Amino acid sequence: MSLAIISPGKNVTVWIENFKKLDPSLKVQVYPDITHPEEVQAVTLWNHPKGILDDFPNLKLVCSMGAGVDHILADESIPEDLPITRIIDDKLTQSMTNYVVMGVLNFHRQIKRYQNDQQRKVWDMSNPEIPVRVGILGVGELGGDIAEKLMQLRFEVVGFGNSPKENLSFEYFFGDEIHKFLSKINILVCMLPLTEKTEGVLNLDFFKKCQKGTYLINVARGRHLVEEDLLKALDEGYISGALLDVFQKEPLPVEHPFWEREEITITPHIASVTNPAAAAPQIIENYHRIKKCQPFINQINRKRGY
Amino acid sequence: MSLAIISPGKNVTVWIENFKKLDPSLKVQVYPDITHPEEVQAVTLWNHPKGILDDFPNLKLVCSMGAGVDHILADESIPEDLPITRIIDDKLTQSMTNYVVMGVLNFHRQIKRYQNDQQRKVWDMSNPEIPVRVGILGVGELGGDIAEKLMQLRFEVVGFGNSPKENLSFEYFFGDEIHKFLSKINILVCMLPLTEKTEGVLNLDFFKKCQKGTYLINVARGRHLVEEDLLKALDEGYISGALLDVFQKEPLPVEHPFWEREEITITPHIASVTNPAAAAPQIIENYHRIKKCQPFINQINRKRGY
Repeated sequence: MSLAIISPGKNVTVWIENFKKLDPSLKVQVYPDITHPEEVQAVTLWNHPKGILDDFPNLKLVCSMGAGVDHILADESIPEDLPITRIIDDKLTQSMTNYVVMGVLNFHRQIKRYQNDQQRKVWDMSNPEIPVRVGILGVGELGGDIAEKLMQLRFEVVGFGNSPKENLSFEYFFGDEIHKFLSKINILVCMLPLTEKTEGVLNLDFFKKCQKGTYLINVARGRHLVEEDLLKALDEGYISGALLDVFQKEPLPVEHPFWEREEITITPHIASVTNPAAAAPQIIENYHRIKKCQPFINQINRKRGY
Repeated sequence: MSLAIISPGKNVTVWIENFKKLDPSLKVQVYPDITHPEEVQAVTLWNHPKGILDDFPNLKLVCSMGAGVDHILADESIPEDLPITRIIDDKLTQSMTNYVVMGVLNFHRQIKRYQNDQQRKVWDMSNPEIPVRVGILGVGELGGDIAEKLMQLRFEVVGFGNSPKENLSFEYFFGDEIHKFLSKINILVCMLPLTEKTEGVLNLDFFKKCQKGTYLINVARGRHLVEEDLLKALDEGYISGALLDVFQKEPLPVEHPFWEREEITITPHIASVTNPAAAAPQIIENYHRIKKCQPFINQINRKRGY
């Protein structure tokens, strides 16, 4: 019985160290040097080559090395009944929340305006705050924490999701209520999982439903956003600006028009970075549960896609 | 009996409206058109001409129109036993807290670095977070709220003040423990009241006690900071950067070197702006307490200076 790591192009030394600390007897094989595929009962992966899991005849578990599983689900060759787990990490949540709170505060307090004023040596005290109401698309583990922290800072928050939810401390809409949701907010935070349903959801039609001047924060996946549509929405004023951490193609190509748009702030996919020390125990725990035939932790629902 | 408003150069219409809404029978006189000084039992003021309170023989109360009272205490002609009150406003606290949290997050998540990278079309994912520990100089009403909100965002916070304090949820130092306090932090937030003791407290000697690279946020008063000493501290690396909302002279003169320092972010004294709708009830309440001979709310301690 062994665990395979498949994360092409990345140095996985820290991951191996963390795994071995938790289970010194663990047998690890690292792609592409997998000599005994028949021994592999679990793989942990990030951006694996599609179809490769067919090589493991005794595979019982697939573990994402991060919070997202879209990179796994994009591989149609993975059998329907193979369990897939993801990482839920408090530090990851903390980083994501702080990044989004930063984006909300910088829009609310107009940091770019004051930076421009400073360059021109202008002292303008008028209208120091833009009143904001924040809408969160997708209020799962991460979106829920962002909502809570924003409310502690006394911001109004509204949520939107795929399905009904109970016991939320903020207003929540779902299903066909997207119009109502968008009418109430002027900052839109995309926290959705990437699924067939949500890919390309941030498109021109959607932006036209927003209140004029809505500010966009996308920290989910680049493929949620139709990038040329954001440029149109900025040109036409539906969207006033954006803070983007994720892109269709990463690193963002040098010729991409986003780099030079004044209204767009770009960060290089750093809103939240998986911490091997926090992720490894979850993977090892699940690996041990194979032998014990126990239910896995942080297992995703294949039908929902997250 | 009447109330005088002394706030030279400011339009006080909104203040009068708010006062009249609370007490329609209120008699208000506005400087410089004060025709019956002998009727004035209370003044509310902001940056009044020094010595002017001598004109009111029956004065019983001086109300600051904002959170600070340093502009009042700077007038030595005001009798020792005249009560002085200030404004405590939840919205004012909220603005101040959000501004400081924004400053902390922008340093922690290196927004300026990413803005520079964007200009040069650089995609650099390395070291996305600077670990921070925030020190708050002055943990009164405002400083205490900032500490609380930063801790909710899972930051470590340390406080420093003039006198011992109990029941704080964070580490606290006072008196001669400034060295210990500064050794523990790499973001310094100045929330002190401006008094004889605290004027010029942010000077080169002080900066030399900081951990190399400490980031400064000053939202208290311009006169806390010896401005040429900050330039020296930046040159020598004691301080790595600063977010400044207040200055020795406001508006900041066009020729001031701060405007052009890359490491300094300037905002035009907008961290927190007094809201007349929230302040007026406190002033009217105290005005009524004169007649009822009741103790005033939000009265300051003249000896402490805040």
